[in-house]
Amino acid sequence: MKLNIAVLPGDGIGPEVTAEAVKVLKAIAMEFNHVFTFDYGLIGASAIDKTGNPLPDASLELSKKADTILFGAIGEPKYDNDPYAKIRPEQGLLKLRKELDLYTNIRPVIAYEDLLNNSPLKKKYIKDVNICIYRELTGGIYFGDKKVSENGNNASDICEYSRFEIERIAHMAFKAAQSRKQKLTLIDKANVLESSRLWRKVVKELASQYQDVTLDFLFIDNAAMQVITNPKQFDVILTENMFGDIISEEASVIVGSIGLLASASIGDTHAMFEPIHGTYTMARNKGIANPIAAILSAAMLLDHFGLYDEASLVREGVEKSLKLHITTPDLNTKYDNISTSKVGDFIEDFINNPDETNLN
Amino acid sequence: MKLNIAVLPGDGIGPEVTAEAVKVLKAIAMEFNHVFTFDYGLIGASAIDKTGNPLPDASLELSKKADTILFGAIGEPKYDNDPYAKIRPEQGLLKLRKELDLYTNIRPVIAYEDLLNNSPLKKKYIKDVNICIYRELTGGIYFGDKKVSENGNNASDICEYSRFEIERIAHMAFKAAQSRKQKLTLIDKANVLESSRLWRKVVKELASQYQDVTLDFLFIDNAAMQVITNPKQFDVILTENMFGDIISEEASVIVGSIGLLASASIGDTHAMFEPIHGTYTMARNKGIANPIAAILSAAMLLDHFGLYDEASLVREGVEKSLKLHITTPDLNTKYDNISTSKVGDFIEDFINNPDETNLN
Ligand SMILES: CC(C)[C@H](C(=O)O)[C@@H](O)C(=O)O
Ligand SMILES: CC(C)[C@H](C(=O)O)[C@@H](O)C(=O)O
Repeated sequence: MKLNIAVLPGDGIGPEVTAEAVKVLKAIAMEFNHVFTFDYGLIGASAIDKTGNPLPDASLELSKKADTILFGAIGEPKYDNDPYAKIRPEQGLLKLRKELDLYTNIRPVIAYEDLLNNSPLKKKYIKDVNICIYRELTGGIYFGDKKVSENGNNASDICEYSRFEIERIAHMAFKAAQSRKQKLTLIDKANVLESSRLWRKVVKELASQYQDVTLDFLFIDNAAMQVITNPKQFDVILTENMFGDIISEEASVIVGSIGLLASASIGDTHAMFEPIHGTYTMARNKGIANPIAAILSAAMLLDHFGLYDEASLVREGVEKSLKLHITTPDLNTKYDNISTSKVGDFIEDFINNPDETNLN
Repeated sequence: MKLNIAVLPGDGIGPEVTAEAVKVLKAIAMEFNHVFTFDYGLIGASAIDKTGNPLPDASLELSKKADTILFGAIGEPKYDNDPYAKIRPEQGLLKLRKELDLYTNIRPVIAYEDLLNNSPLKKKYIKDVNICIYRELTGGIYFGDKKVSENGNNASDICEYSRFEIERIAHMAFKAAQSRKQKLTLIDKANVLESSRLWRKVVKELASQYQDVTLDFLFIDNAAMQVITNPKQFDVILTENMFGDIISEEASVIVGSIGLLASASIGDTHAMFEPIHGTYTMARNKGIANPIAAILSAAMLLDHFGLYDEASLVREGVEKSLKLHITTPDLNTKYDNISTSKVGDFIEDFINNPDETNLN
């Protein structure tokens, strides 16, 4: 297969972890006789520094033309702490999601057997947890009208949803549930928000088309508790943009490190793959950033194009690295000094030689 | 002291747990020679059933006239699952908060030594955690304009804040931090929301008046993770309405049961005290509802009126009940069949006879 992949490494640890994902994809291409080409673009704070624009036209064009996109992370503390900044790294990512209409963000949360001790949660709560979060990604309060009064003393954001926006991701989530454990949980705040009541209404209506799927509902506050007290109850979670942002980052505690969570952002014509972690700027250029989330995002990319054997091999490599403690320090590895690129090298070696890779 | 207390038990387990809080307040009045009177009002689904109104005028008047308010819980699944219902239990609570201008909701999260094993979190993560959450309670997306399009296919909610609304609760939170560990964390989503940027701006400006307090910032998604991975970092948390709802219910996992978390809702002229848990309708009339959150809310009420010895005695009674496992089943008590009222009785006995209460 020929795939032209746009690579947008972004800021902070983005470039480091993305480099490892590319390394792994190159190894896969080699092993399986695919032709993967990689074209790089700027986005986020580094794009602002160089062009004044968090999503330069060239990067948007590149992303539109490519078969798919590999994304790193964006964000810089200097913008976070400046409420006055008019141009911000996040605008680049949000614009990209919107322009490519990447409305379904899929975030799997899997408790790896070898990492059960890494979680702050007790083992019995998380063993065998396997959740797939469907987060709406191009609507809600992220994209609704924003206002600041002239004197700067009032500010507002609108959370708006349409039936159309809810239906299209809900179908994806119901279908995912059908192929998994036939359970779908909608998370909303329907006791307070009109937009949440629309979600509940539309999702309930669609349920009749998916009679094999058990549908239930949780308010976001209750859900934020239950993701910790009883994560095993969940199969597929469906939720709006902001709640999905919160609940998925929270759910990372089940896995033991946010450096392990991958995601796919899917629309009708484009698809982008990105770790859910941020730019973790304190770790920049120290070689300590965990590349697994980026590498697992590359596996989701392979799945997306039907390259299931290839994706499985990447995941096996990841699991082997965890088993052998070839991991960055966030996972309390047995060994000192296992760097970002060393983890990528290990998985690359595994792909080249699945039966022989061992501690080296 | 003379105190006239409006009691609004509400729905589900609200009446049961509130009865125990009243029991405890009566014991305190007796021991300390206070005159506490209690006037009851309807609110929530039970008020809708009887009057068609989730906050009947009589209840509002009662609450306004009283020295303070003890509140139970409101909500019924039949409304939650009906996105079309125009009249809803929650409207009663929200109207009450708004009418009495109860803008500061204070939610302490304390890891009790005797309950460290009850949490899904490992002991080392939660030992000694003592967080106080300041949640803005009368603004934001809860109270902003809500719209549904005529055909019902579009719905929106506005999240709006003014400098005034932020300043008044921020002062409360800074002062609380001064009297505690001098650390204040603002939780927002300033990388995406204008309203969050206003929070960050205003709170930063006020910081110069509280130079002894260390101020830091977390995005809500990151915060939802860090409340689990590193709760010890927090002293006072300040946040807007919706984020406070989410983060406080999530933080209940530290304590081991949501049935333990009390709260105070304070305005310039009124104050209300309520457990943070919901109506837990599955438990209604089974005698299994944990009354501790309601009883600790009564302790916060006593504190509010400067009755510190009284409040301490209530808390000692609660701690003793935990130590002796006189607790409802949510806390995996050693003993079977310890009912809601049995817990209240124990704490009442303790108040009457602090030195003699033991297993009975
Ligand atoms: C960087 C930020 C805008 C983004 C979001 O909130 O969507 C991130 O947190 C994520 O989850 O991808
Ligand atoms: C019942 C509901 C409206 C309420 C809220 O969201 O504020 C509750 O969850 C709370 O936290 O007091």
